[in-house]
Amino acid sequence: MAETQQIKGMDELLYRQRHSAAHIMAEAVLEVFPEAKYAIGPPIENGFYYDFDLPRPLTPEDLDALDRLMRQSIAANKPFVRSEASKDEARRIFADQPYKLELIDGIDAPNVGICRHGDFTDLCGYPHVESTGQVGEFKLMSIAGAYWRGDEHRQMLQRIYGVMFPTQAELDGYLHRLEEAEKRDHRKLGRELDLFSFHEEYGPGLVYWHPKGARVRSIIEDFWRKEHFEGGYDLVYTPHIGRSELWQTSGHLDFYAENMYSPMDIDGMDYYAKPMNCPFHIQIYKSQVRSYRELPLRLAELGTVYRYERSGVLHGLLRVRGFTQDDAHIFCRPDQVEDEIARTLQFVLFILRTFGFEEFDVAVSTQPAKAVGSDDDWRTAEAALKRAVEACGLSYGIDEGGGAFYGPKIDVSIKDALGRAWQCSTIQFDFNLPERFDVAFIGEDGREHRPYMVHRALLGSIERFFGTLIEHYGGAFPVWLAPVQARLIPIADRHNHYCEGVAAKLRAAGLRAEVDGRSERMQAKIRDAQLQKVPYMLIAGDRDIEAGAVSVRTRENEDLGAVAVDDFVARLKAESSP
Amino acid sequence: MAETQQIKGMDELLYRQRHSAAHIMAEAVLEVFPEAKYAIGPPIENGFYYDFDLPRPLTPEDLDALDRLMRQSIAANKPFVRSEASKDEARRIFADQPYKLELIDGIDAPNVGICRHGDFTDLCGYPHVESTGQVGEFKLMSIAGAYWRGDEHRQMLQRIYGVMFPTQAELDGYLHRLEEAEKRDHRKLGRELDLFSFHEEYGPGLVYWHPKGARVRSIIEDFWRKEHFEGGYDLVYTPHIGRSELWQTSGHLDFYAENMYSPMDIDGMDYYAKPMNCPFHIQIYKSQVRSYRELPLRLAELGTVYRYERSGVLHGLLRVRGFTQDDAHIFCRPDQVEDEIARTLQFVLFILRTFGFEEFDVAVSTQPAKAVGSDDDWRTAEAALKRAVEACGLSYGIDEGGGAFYGPKIDVSIKDALGRAWQCSTIQFDFNLPERFDVAFIGEDGREHRPYMVHRALLGSIERFFGTLIEHYGGAFPVWLAPVQARLIPIADRHNHYCEGVAAKLRAAGLRAEVDGRSERMQAKIRDAQLQKVPYMLIAGDRDIEAGAVSVRTRENEDLGAVAVDDFVARLKAESSP
Repeated sequence: MAETQQIKGMDELLYRQRHSAAHIMAEAVLEVFPEAKYAIGPPIENGFYYDFDLPRPLTPEDLDALDRLMRQSIAANKPFVRSEASKDEARRIFADQPYKLELIDGIDAPNVGICRHGDFTDLCGYPHVESTGQVGEFKLMSIAGAYWRGDEHRQMLQRIYGVMFPTQAELDGYLHRLEEAEKRDHRKLGRELDLFSFHEEYGPGLVYWHPKGARVRSIIEDFWRKEHFEGGYDLVYTPHIGRSELWQTSGHLDFYAENMYSPMDIDGMDYYAKPMNCPFHIQIYKSQVRSYRELPLRLAELGTVYRYERSGVLHGLLRVRGFTQDDAHIFCRPDQVEDEIARTLQFVLFILRTFGFEEFDVAVSTQPAKAVGSDDDWRTAEAALKRAVEACGLSYGIDEGGGAFYGPKIDVSIKDALGRAWQCSTIQFDFNLPERFDVAFIGEDGREHRPYMVHRALLGSIERFFGTLIEHYGGAFPVWLAPVQARLIPIADRHNHYCEGVAAKLRAAGLRAEVDGRSERMQAKIRDAQLQKVPYMLIAGDRDIEAGAVSVRTRENEDLGAVAVDDFVARLKAESSP
Repeated sequence: MAETQQIKGMDELLYRQRHSAAHIMAEAVLEVFPEAKYAIGPPIENGFYYDFDLPRPLTPEDLDALDRLMRQSIAANKPFVRSEASKDEARRIFADQPYKLELIDGIDAPNVGICRHGDFTDLCGYPHVESTGQVGEFKLMSIAGAYWRGDEHRQMLQRIYGVMFPTQAELDGYLHRLEEAEKRDHRKLGRELDLFSFHEEYGPGLVYWHPKGARVRSIIEDFWRKEHFEGGYDLVYTPHIGRSELWQTSGHLDFYAENMYSPMDIDGMDYYAKPMNCPFHIQIYKSQVRSYRELPLRLAELGTVYRYERSGVLHGLLRVRGFTQDDAHIFCRPDQVEDEIARTLQFVLFILRTFGFEEFDVAVSTQPAKAVGSDDDWRTAEAALKRAVEACGLSYGIDEGGGAFYGPKIDVSIKDALGRAWQCSTIQFDFNLPERFDVAFIGEDGREHRPYMVHRALLGSIERFFGTLIEHYGGAFPVWLAPVQARLIPIADRHNHYCEGVAAKLRAAGLRAEVDGRSERMQAKIRDAQLQKVPYMLIAGDRDIEAGAVSVRTRENEDLGAVAVDDFVARLKAESSP
């Protein structure tokens, strides 16, 4: 989906350039492997690829050779010549190309497009640049296996990926961002910084939070709870399993079963691991008769849910099978709904900004063709959502008809340090569950009314958000989130005792400090601490001890000189607030 | 088990008195229902019971009549006469008593005991007091159904319970404690104080924590985390489900399966809800090669586990199917184990004392006949456990051979305000899992060694401990734990605004305050706040506002007079530390 949308937005010339580059690459491949069978080669986001059936697996050296041949073709500035041919004619042209023959069979028109440049001929109905010299700056990136037509029962082909941009500067910029993104890959940093692990053999997509990752998580959660209490939310805790009756009433067994695991049997009854917290929060709401005076009731939970994802789509912390939603359900009166939405969105922005995100993409999704709830409710809810976004001074897109069948919503994506968007917060009306569970409050008129129910998650899931944070900061968490804020580095063993004392002082002030007491060289210890992205290294030798100080160096290798211990404690304490 | 142990410890005379009282009760039942078939009637903790097969269900009025008849028999001071009879003779005596006949058939001796007082004859080999006048002070308490021989396929009988103590003062004391215990029943208080609920229809034994209960829980957990960080523990988070391979290696599927739920199917593989956290913590330990320098490693988690309990034994928060262990696993070198055990036990006592418990029952359980691990390891571990208890100045019992097959342990029970014991903390060696998972560290000698592994839980489970806390405090939590610490009570509506301001000031200081803005009479509001066990009621009228004060009253109805708002904030803040 993302790919198609990106291509939709791709500049027309760039589309032609990338498409033409795919042909030039195929030309080169056929020069090296005259017996090659070539399949398809479309432009894609950032570049192009082409799939080949080759007599042997490609090597990185092959890419170098292909690169040279492509540059020769580009230098020769061969014109692209497009023509049409009858399908029979085309079958003759591609007589020894079985993939092309199959493509021709699949074309539902009397004629097909043919595109030639130099000695290379391809089956192709799409536009190209005028000649090979007009393509942009490119780089061949990688080789990967790909099934013919994406069908795992058919031939495995070799796909060659290339990137292409109009100018060398743009290409370099892209390659730099790519390199940065690789350096920031949360799976790589997760291992290097010892933050978390997965254990495929005991279940893929299930996160094990190691001490340092768990420390960051606990800081996130502490902050989250504190802000929720102050924001008028009530915390709840609910079970991770529930009987089929609950999921029957909620409708999950009818409409969400493919995302749920098979049931467990307890005393002959079916229990399911929860994919969502909502039905449980509704039980707490319903545990007593609610008066209009009690509303809004905002029930919040760091609720761990389990959902089925195909193992192929699992991706580090970003796509997992078990995750903790920072979930809340707001039950409110119709006259409160607009205020509630506005303050929820403000809350979203406050929380995300605190974590260092400043740019947001906002989308409001409206009533789809098939929907529950009255049109009036939809209009009220949609208006509340739009006004809330406007009141926050944000621009937004509208996804007309893109709401869930049970209500409209706001989605907020954050942009990270590399400009990449990450889907994050949701504010979602629900006109379905209150009906299904007969949720009510007693109005001022003494009669039963249906409250509005709004689901919302600010971070989305703790796992995914943590993955985003790791990539945004490249593992160098801000001081308030860093699992270790300062590492004491004794210059020699005789300075260990002093360092332990300073660390204890920092810890007593609620700060996170550790001592590197290994018998390594100081420079090695500094380097290790910097690799571990510890914000401050506090080095202590004879002179520091005499002065009651530590020599402070940052993870960016800035030398802050000797600082009195008490001053540093005060400084770090001040930096440790969100 | 508890009953037997209690009776073992019961005073010999009291045992006779209670046993004799059971006979006197049976005598009375036969006077009222000459056709009654009587089964068995033993002394028990606090009293006695007797089971009868009667022509109709008993009513409370029947108990009054039986009480009168028993007092007549006691006043008549009839001697108890014991004799022996052959089984044939006995069969003639009890010819119309089928339960006694079955008992006689089951006796593996030529003769049986017969006990007579007045016109009542029983099959009985146990000692009695000399005459009915010598029994103590009694009260008939209740009627309950009980299967003959505890077998649900056999006759349902009616069991009458009585309590008996040597003196009226002791009886009154017991009845008072009983009444207190009923008032403090956490299930009752859980409803009245809106702390939690169960929803049988969606799964019995699964706790839904309501806002006020969850608030207390979050305070407990915050405190727990802080103390663990300060105590050198590392926090981790692990999944709630794991593949069968994990539970196969751990041995749970072989030895613990009856406590586990049936598996869920994911991609054709079996996953189980975790009954324990240990195998997950071991994976984190094993995620890298560990050096002797890294030990001890103390991995702690508030880990929610799911275990099967028969629905009949579920009991409020005390026996549930899903609960959160305050779990930790300590991996340490042999030379560290004694220190680790000692500091763990000190940690246990510190935590429990902070929650207001001062009396502890400690038991050390030693190597059973069938055990894994070397005898040397057992001796080392047992010695460490005993020395740790002694170092803490605690007396302890030894449960010889009572350890689990995989290691010895310390169990700590706390005594609550009514003197009742609650099993709580455990410190448990494990010689099994390190072998099964091949857990190792690299020693100073550069070779692999097996670390000691110790499981420990301080509170046991958050659910159970919360139930204990509720009963210990009768719902009147100490200020630092109270979900609402102060409730503002405006005398008239015009004082609401002032009260909101004071509440906001308290909240800004991190305190938990709410305003009772209902249009009720002040006295009713005070009463409601006291019923909700809110530590402080802050009443505000014209004079308070003028003075920038609140009139403070405690939940015990003590009037503390007018206190300046700032002074009260400072006072409450000071009282809010654990």
